[in-house]
Amino acid sequence: MKTLKLRKVAIDTYKENVAYLHRDCPLYRSEGFQALNKIEIRDGVNTSPVIAVLNIVDDENIVAINELGLSEQTFLQFSATENCSVFVDHASPPTSIQLVHAKIAGDCLGPKDFLHICQDIVHNRYSKIEISAFLVGCAEGGLERNEMLYLTQAMVDTGKTLNWGEPMVVDKHCIGGIPGNRTTMLIVPIVTAHGMLMPKTSSRAITSPSGTADTMEVLAKVNLEPDELRSIAQQQRGFIAWGGTANLAPVDDILISVERPLALDSRGQMIASILSKKIAAGSTHLLIDIPVGPTAKVHTQTEALKLRKLFEYIGDRTNLDIEVIITDGHQPIGNGIGPALEARDVMQVLNNEPQAPVDLKEKSLQMAGRILEFDPDVRGGQGYHLARDLLESGRALKKMQEIMQLQGVNSVSDEPAKFKYEVNSPIKGYVKEINNLQIAHIARLAGAPMDKIAGIDLHKKQNASVSEGELLYTIYAEFHADFQFAKSSALKNSGYAIESQK
Amino acid sequence: MKTLKLRKVAIDTYKENVAYLHRDCPLYRSEGFQALNKIEIRDGVNTSPVIAVLNIVDDENIVAINELGLSEQTFLQFSATENCSVFVDHASPPTSIQLVHAKIAGDCLGPKDFLHICQDIVHNRYSKIEISAFLVGCAEGGLERNEMLYLTQAMVDTGKTLNWGEPMVVDKHCIGGIPGNRTTMLIVPIVTAHGMLMPKTSSRAITSPSGTADTMEVLAKVNLEPDELRSIAQQQRGFIAWGGTANLAPVDDILISVERPLALDSRGQMIASILSKKIAAGSTHLLIDIPVGPTAKVHTQTEALKLRKLFEYIGDRTNLDIEVIITDGHQPIGNGIGPALEARDVMQVLNNEPQAPVDLKEKSLQMAGRILEFDPDVRGGQGYHLARDLLESGRALKKMQEIMQLQGVNSVSDEPAKFKYEVNSPIKGYVKEINNLQIAHIARLAGAPMDKIAGIDLHKKQNASVSEGELLYTIYAEFHADFQFAKSSALKNSGYAIESQK
Repeated sequence: MKTLKLRKVAIDTYKENVAYLHRDCPLYRSEGFQALNKIEIRDGVNTSPVIAVLNIVDDENIVAINELGLSEQTFLQFSATENCSVFVDHASPPTSIQLVHAKIAGDCLGPKDFLHICQDIVHNRYSKIEISAFLVGCAEGGLERNEMLYLTQAMVDTGKTLNWGEPMVVDKHCIGGIPGNRTTMLIVPIVTAHGMLMPKTSSRAITSPSGTADTMEVLAKVNLEPDELRSIAQQQRGFIAWGGTANLAPVDDILISVERPLALDSRGQMIASILSKKIAAGSTHLLIDIPVGPTAKVHTQTEALKLRKLFEYIGDRTNLDIEVIITDGHQPIGNGIGPALEARDVMQVLNNEPQAPVDLKEKSLQMAGRILEFDPDVRGGQGYHLARDLLESGRALKKMQEIMQLQGVNSVSDEPAKFKYEVNSPIKGYVKEINNLQIAHIARLAGAPMDKIAGIDLHKKQNASVSEGELLYTIYAEFHADFQFAKSSALKNSGYAIESQK
Repeated sequence: MKTLKLRKVAIDTYKENVAYLHRDCPLYRSEGFQALNKIEIRDGVNTSPVIAVLNIVDDENIVAINELGLSEQTFLQFSATENCSVFVDHASPPTSIQLVHAKIAGDCLGPKDFLHICQDIVHNRYSKIEISAFLVGCAEGGLERNEMLYLTQAMVDTGKTLNWGEPMVVDKHCIGGIPGNRTTMLIVPIVTAHGMLMPKTSSRAITSPSGTADTMEVLAKVNLEPDELRSIAQQQRGFIAWGGTANLAPVDDILISVERPLALDSRGQMIASILSKKIAAGSTHLLIDIPVGPTAKVHTQTEALKLRKLFEYIGDRTNLDIEVIITDGHQPIGNGIGPALEARDVMQVLNNEPQAPVDLKEKSLQMAGRILEFDPDVRGGQGYHLARDLLESGRALKKMQEIMQLQGVNSVSDEPAKFKYEVNSPIKGYVKEINNLQIAHIARLAGAPMDKIAGIDLHKKQNASVSEGELLYTIYAEFHADFQFAKSSALKNSGYAIESQK
């Protein structure tokens, strides 16, 4: 009675499941379906139904009256093929939505409540509207620290977890906001050269001009299968890959797909997002970097300390050994901003080239040192020196080359970007401040991270002296429209504050 | 450069604007468009762009590579025709989204802030995700009373307003939650028979088994053009129509399209929604009914008093003369629940039939009486008697018939619903309580309001004595699946509490 023939409709709806039903389909009227209703689709093979939003079609070329069309991504969620029979029904609202209402009303939720919500989310029972409501309910102090713990745990429990079969698996995480901050690509070769296990999965950029995965992709493939990653880790003690394929804490990815367009700042959600991914990835020891500065994510030392305590609270209750360092977030780290320019900086440091950016090198050594000190055999306070030895001896470079080889080297084009614009100092003086947000904004407008070669190259950092008209930074872009956007934004606000005297 | 040919795609996406672009379209790559991006479309004629969510198409039969497809509703927003050229660009995020973030963080917003948000919403600059965030930020005590005032005013100012050219235009509103509560259909004929102007626009059901517009539609057309309505009001002093066509406080409709699936309870949003529609519709005097009961929307007298004061506060500042009455919301009003069954109750009262439901008649008379007392010539306390005279003399019936005639009489089928299920009392005793929510739920499952004839007919009301096995109510349904859902819900929970003795 409620059977329709499955058909793939060649429309890409990204993370939103969409189904297409013809208006004259007998089911349309009899079941009272309406456009934007949520429906459940079962193929008789999978146990749990696929939930999709309904669009009504008035053209038999798209779907015929006995067919149910599915957008490309939705179709992939079925083991069934085209023309097989599927069952369609109204989707019942997620039972856990009551808990979201309670959260919005200010109630505290328990571990089972968060698990219930995460289970419904991971089964696609939440619409984007409902996810948005959940996120807002959790935002801006909406979560107590024990609720953050429960949410973290629920996000771990609703996905796969990795087990590396070793007592120590190290990881690092920066809470972000600092352009160019590619320490991971130096820390991994340093600490794996020491023999520590650091199977590093990183994200792509969400709102920044580049994520570690985007930058690493300039040098090597990052989109690898779990089996490949495991084999690389066995051979080289580590890798630097994109973390999106492993189904670790999948609720986090779904939440982020809504959080991103909302640009919502939610501390609890951020902490649960970071820690759930790390726990699911099998990490045992984690170094967290909280940069502080007027244009960083965290503006004050007090705020950073609060965050540190929250990380520690949850780490202690989830068997994750967490160290938090609070770092200088007053300006970008390194010179390049954008995947290719950042990869260049990283390779300069690994190659011990004289023009290598000092700040990137120093920060990476300090962080690598802290991670090395997780090793019981490394004497407290000796981590930094050990890290420097590993870098300056060329062992880190060799390790990086071996890792790149196993991940699959990407050929880098030496071709410069098509469009180039130089921003100069309007006066003689010194660089008082560099605005992370504006520099990141210009680099994104220029096309980063989508265009690997696009971005910004900084020639002057904080406190540097400049003469009038001296080059501050260069913008690179591949497409004319991007170039114009970036240039006009830089003309409005260069992101540099130049003062005439100290 | 960014020009594409407009094409209508025969897909119905309801209140969501969707645009379709072929993956091989040169613009797709060069502009970095992605599925689910928001884009701006201009046709060179309209000054403000149409904003739509992008879907990417891999089939030239749906859209060709030089075309931009638009879903049916989106296409209608253009004055342009198919094949004309349109310009496409990335939609900039709504500038007022910063204000939504501030609201979520607990800040109070001013009149200009709410106007800014409403302007962006009415120009379709908000995605459903962003609207959801705004609603949650305003929910559960998120709005101060002056913010409710600003939101109300902003919702009025971003739409059309009607002017009836008379000093007194009366209206009534019930905050809802009581099934069968169709007083409007009695109040309008009574007070217009007295000569008052009551051009009544009502809503369709959102979460209830019937709205006044759904019930009126059983008797007459409710989907009328503004000009027709004005002409009917001139001839008969009133009408009972659906309010959805007039572009009054259009932001309210957009907010409700998100609030509805969220099932969010937001006092400020509710008050702004009610009052903005009334002010925009040109009402000068308004009676508000707040039913109180354990399964009504408002549970306590205290809560009702708070609401009353909020209504009064905003009414006083918007030149709307508001009277609030707090009524008994312990059980449904009338016997029928669902459009056709409710229309039957209404006609029984107008016809002064002996079996007419007393509670519906009495409540309508009391409310009509209060409205009649807005007339300076009606002595305080005499409204009820005047209303009763107008009803019992048959003048209200005659008025209703004239209004129906002008709106266009709908022919009512006498055919009973296909499926019928009787719910009986399990024991001898009396009806202690009737659960409004469960009765409404069962009636909706049975198919109301979409199937006019579906619903519930109550045979026993609160405090009635019942013998074991005596009929409590009958469920009517038109479709078998609906019938099964309704029946199984009633078997689990009949909604009636029967006690063996008082």
